[in-house]
Amino acid sequence: MKEFTIIDSFFTKQNCQRKDVILPIGDDCAITQVPAGQQLAITTDTLVSGVHFPQDSSPEAIAHKSLAVSLSDLAAMGAEPAWINLSLSMPTGDPDWLARFSATLLAQCEYYSVQLIGGDTVQGPLVITITAHGFVPEKQAITRKGGKPGDLLYVTGCVGDAGLGLAIALDKHQAAAGNASYLRKRLDFPTPRVLAGNNLRRIASACIDISDGLLVDLQHILQGSGVGALLQLEHLPLSAELLAEVGQQQAIDLALTSGDDYELLFSVPQEQVTNLERSMLQCNVPVTCIGQLTGQTGKIQLQWNKQAYQLQRRGYQHFALEESVE
Amino acid sequence: MKEFTIIDSFFTKQNCQRKDVILPIGDDCAITQVPAGQQLAITTDTLVSGVHFPQDSSPEAIAHKSLAVSLSDLAAMGAEPAWINLSLSMPTGDPDWLARFSATLLAQCEYYSVQLIGGDTVQGPLVITITAHGFVPEKQAITRKGGKPGDLLYVTGCVGDAGLGLAIALDKHQAAAGNASYLRKRLDFPTPRVLAGNNLRRIASACIDISDGLLVDLQHILQGSGVGALLQLEHLPLSAELLAEVGQQQAIDLALTSGDDYELLFSVPQEQVTNLERSMLQCNVPVTCIGQLTGQTGKIQLQWNKQAYQLQRRGYQHFALEESVE
Repeated sequence: MKEFTIIDSFFTKQNCQRKDVILPIGDDCAITQVPAGQQLAITTDTLVSGVHFPQDSSPEAIAHKSLAVSLSDLAAMGAEPAWINLSLSMPTGDPDWLARFSATLLAQCEYYSVQLIGGDTVQGPLVITITAHGFVPEKQAITRKGGKPGDLLYVTGCVGDAGLGLAIALDKHQAAAGNASYLRKRLDFPTPRVLAGNNLRRIASACIDISDGLLVDLQHILQGSGVGALLQLEHLPLSAELLAEVGQQQAIDLALTSGDDYELLFSVPQEQVTNLERSMLQCNVPVTCIGQLTGQTGKIQLQWNKQAYQLQRRGYQHFALEESVE
Repeated sequence: MKEFTIIDSFFTKQNCQRKDVILPIGDDCAITQVPAGQQLAITTDTLVSGVHFPQDSSPEAIAHKSLAVSLSDLAAMGAEPAWINLSLSMPTGDPDWLARFSATLLAQCEYYSVQLIGGDTVQGPLVITITAHGFVPEKQAITRKGGKPGDLLYVTGCVGDAGLGLAIALDKHQAAAGNASYLRKRLDFPTPRVLAGNNLRRIASACIDISDGLLVDLQHILQGSGVGALLQLEHLPLSAELLAEVGQQQAIDLALTSGDDYELLFSVPQEQVTNLERSMLQCNVPVTCIGQLTGQTGKIQLQWNKQAYQLQRRGYQHFALEESVE
């Protein structure tokens, strides 16, 4: 028990001290203040060793990813990150591991102006849960429900990288050193698209982050908005590293079916396209139009240069960390 | 993965639908609204099977306790519960276990007018994390810092029961059937003192919930407030069941050193005592004055009928669930 009280000391030295945190870590609860005119976006994500990250992941990677997946959810709502609560269950209070984990977590918190306001450290299997809180102006949250037929469908960054990164982590793909480093980094150190998400308020009609795979996550928008989608796969943004390793066809399959990319997938009414382009240029986030929403509720049409495209359902898309767990 | 999507369906049928939840479960984040004039109290607690509850605990007990420990933290700040996020990691998606766990959790949520607004269900060892959110009027949160020498020290309900309940759960104490049932219930189904906590605003000068044991938790108030305490142990509220099982001396030791009672321990300025008594009578919560804060920072004096009392440091106080874990 004492050991786990000591653990807490690793999380007390924070550079980010927000004015809206009235009472920080150290009492039964934190006390916070939501600014007038703002609503509160709240999300919880749990990462289990061997399920959501490889068991040999570095403490830096685990800390980075734990925070990134929660901030990515805030980004997908257009919310600005504010506070997090951390639950850390770990078998032993290894001080080296804790120093590395907490240094990365708090550095990332500082980068995003996020304050750690509470949590719990307990003895148990390695499981990390973060509940993240963010602000979004009233009625400006971007849900999955606002997409309309005709809206253009966009994605930030590149897709498919984390899927091949996982295959590399599981020794199921041998990659050239430079590519392996890039792809594994995309798996272990995803970038939550916080700035992009904030700038999509009043521009995007619907938004989600790609955690389970582009097609699966697109279906959530289709169900939420009661629409269908046409994807023009020749426009899919694929990294040079991914293409160099597996070629175009497998790259497309990975981009469509593998998860963990944490890019934003969003729809934009045509009259907002100029605003979108200006806004994304301003925040320096690459976005690509990959298709359009349609009136065929729940249906996804895949096209390659206007011809129907058959998903191969082979290649790497069946890799999943879950398979490596008993 | 699909299995764990199905799990979510166990948590969707909620009777509690709050107006301050703008967007409930089902998107990347929940969107909520904190009422004007209110601050937000936030707390996270994690319970690991075999560490925080016996491995043979019923799903009802696990659900009840998971929520109770978080609501108890809100109560200790004087906050009114509003929303929770649930992270549930479990080895298999056993539908019977889930039905029982979710039924208890949601029934308790309804009882306290709490809405489940999000969370994560993942495959992994049995670990439950709840982040609870509550409201407290601006500047009325009860912290650990406001105690002053001369303030009277109170506790709600009885103390020590859960400690003996744990000894029973671990087969280290054989109790008469009726006593065993009561004591085990105090361990497995603690009552968070929500109503009492809310009514202590502007009456109590400092407050904490007893989770780690009366002396340990009292030290947090002493450190926070820069005071000491004198305990008059003849006033300690001990249940008839506890006294019947272990006698007065061991009962006192348990009351002072064993945790998990989730009663509130709080200090009250003498001029507020009348208000306190009226208020606690109104909300029907028994409270007992067990001593007084002193000017001797960090020092706890134990007295029995004005004579110095020597804590036995034997008996049941060394029992801890942690010992039963590898």
